Amino acid sequence: MAKAKLLIAGSIAFDDIKTQRARAKGVIGGSASYAGIAASYFALPKPVAVVGTDFCAKHIAPFKKRGVDLSALEVKKGRTFTWAASYDKDFKTARTLATHLNVFENFMPVLKARDRRADAVFLANISPALQTAVLDQLSPRPRLVACDTMNLWIERNRAELMKLIKRVDVLFVNEAEVRQLTGNYNLIKAGRAALKYGPRIVIIKLGPNGSMLVTKTELCQMPPFLVEEPLDTTGAGDSFGGGFVGFLAGVRNWADIKNLKRGVAAGTVMASFAIESFSITRLAGLSKKEINSRISQYAAGLRI
Amino acid sequence: MAKAKLLIAGSIAFDDIKTQRARAKGVIGGSASYAGIAASYFALPKPVAVVGTDFCAKHIAPFKKRGVDLSALEVKKGRTFTWAASYDKDFKTARTLATHLNVFENFMPVLKARDRRADAVFLANISPALQTAVLDQLSPRPRLVACDTMNLWIERNRAELMKLIKRVDVLFVNEAEVRQLTGNYNLIKAGRAALKYGPRIVIIKLGPNGSMLVTKTELCQMPPFLVEEPLDTTGAGDSFGGGFVGFLAGVRNWADIKNLKRGVAAGTVMASFAIESFSITRLAGLSKKEINSRISQYAAGLRI
Repeated sequence: MAKAKLLIAGSIAFDDIKTQRARAKGVIGGSASYAGIAASYFALPKPVAVVGTDFCAKHIAPFKKRGVDLSALEVKKGRTFTWAASYDKDFKTARTLATHLNVFENFMPVLKARDRRADAVFLANISPALQTAVLDQLSPRPRLVACDTMNLWIERNRAELMKLIKRVDVLFVNEAEVRQLTGNYNLIKAGRAALKYGPRIVIIKLGPNGSMLVTKTELCQMPPFLVEEPLDTTGAGDSFGGGFVGFLAGVRNWADIKNLKRGVAAGTVMASFAIESFSITRLAGLSKKEINSRISQYAAGLRI
Repeated sequence: MAKAKLLIAGSIAFDDIKTQRARAKGVIGGSASYAGIAASYFALPKPVAVVGTDFCAKHIAPFKKRGVDLSALEVKKGRTFTWAASYDKDFKTARTLATHLNVFENFMPVLKARDRRADAVFLANISPALQTAVLDQLSPRPRLVACDTMNLWIERNRAELMKLIKRVDVLFVNEAEVRQLTGNYNLIKAGRAALKYGPRIVIIKLGPNGSMLVTKTELCQMPPFLVEEPLDTTGAGDSFGGGFVGFLAGVRNWADIKNLKRGVAAGTVMASFAIESFSITRLAGLSKKEINSRISQYAAGLRI
């Protein structure tokens, strides 16, 4: 069976990351990078993003190797978006040290006719304006529309974000974001409140504690895939989203609870790989066997 | 089959609890109360504890109704141990407002010959000296010896506690305790370090995020049973321990990973009931059907 077509709107960045044990400079980051590589093991991802002229062959290589379709990538004169951050010892908070939007500043995606049709779209973390612009250009509406967001947009672009959320099937948020978005401290209530904004499914990412799946009829918390020594948690949420959406992009009854849970398992496992290295290094070098082995291990761990 | 005999060393107390939404005064609390009632659905629990002369018929009633054997309970002239605490909105921290040891102050359990033989013993949270005294009197050694502890004993009675831990099969700790005990911030490493102190199994209780099971060969995180609106989380850990040990007290191959996970499921579900009311009210009024229904629901939620 041909792999499903998955459009991914998001950022491609150069990251400077400092953890308590090590650091990395100028490595590939951004929501579309992590999500695209994670999804590539299950679907045919096509990032809709912008890079600068400093994004060269060695940066393109890992995407190409993973079969990520870069034909919708815009290359703009200037420098690629950069982000610098440092983490505390438990990776609970990423402290942003610097953000340079560079070519991202005036980016407005215009899709070619051939890029407007996809089985699924993942509106990964970028501004709601860009997410909306991408969704508006898709025709027909993909069978599965998922979006992620962050505290910045909830704070500054709430109206735009709420309009977008109304149109998506799956909303990804972390604990702090769902509380901020809904004003509910209690996560179950917050998840249910977020459902009322429109999405059929809300997935609350719980970092080291897995994730919570909330639908109108189902509620369950899924554990993490335990990683003894995370090296860098940057992109964990993007990889989770990419794995989840990638896995479900080709599944007809994707909203079936069994399939949703399998999607969560795929996302959880992809996130577990992502945090074992800086950047997309570990994530981009996996074999299907390694992935299936972790998914089986995860499922077996849950069997009681 | 006759139910297994389970000795539970711990406290019986009168609690004053204040949460963000309600309060309760002079209600039954204490580690042996919660653990005993939780275990009563799976085994024959016999608390080894002390109460004052103010512990009267109405306090005894719920234990009797649940078939908890109170024949090893010591009644001492004076007042029962009391504890007053308040919780913040997410039940993350219980702030102790007052502790009156009362009859507990000079308590030293002396077991009658008939109380020295049991299938299992749960050394619930009391001082390591008392836990050790109880364990020393058991003969033959029960097939399953489990213990719980808290920050106070780790800080003040470390040497005694370490000696005790060496002799137990199962150690229950929460996140803060296992970090304090081992000096490892990373929970997986902390769990593995705690294993080296002697127990075959370390269970790290993660509060709203379930628990982590660590053995020499296995490592898995089990999710919580989600409760939308916890009323009072006092005794959740004790109920978890009581459910776990009660469930496994009568299981020959209790150390088998499948059985351990079923024990965790039983403990998780008992904790979920415990937090739905103040005191042991909800926990003491359950039907076996309600419990089995939650255990099935929990297991089904995990099936992918």
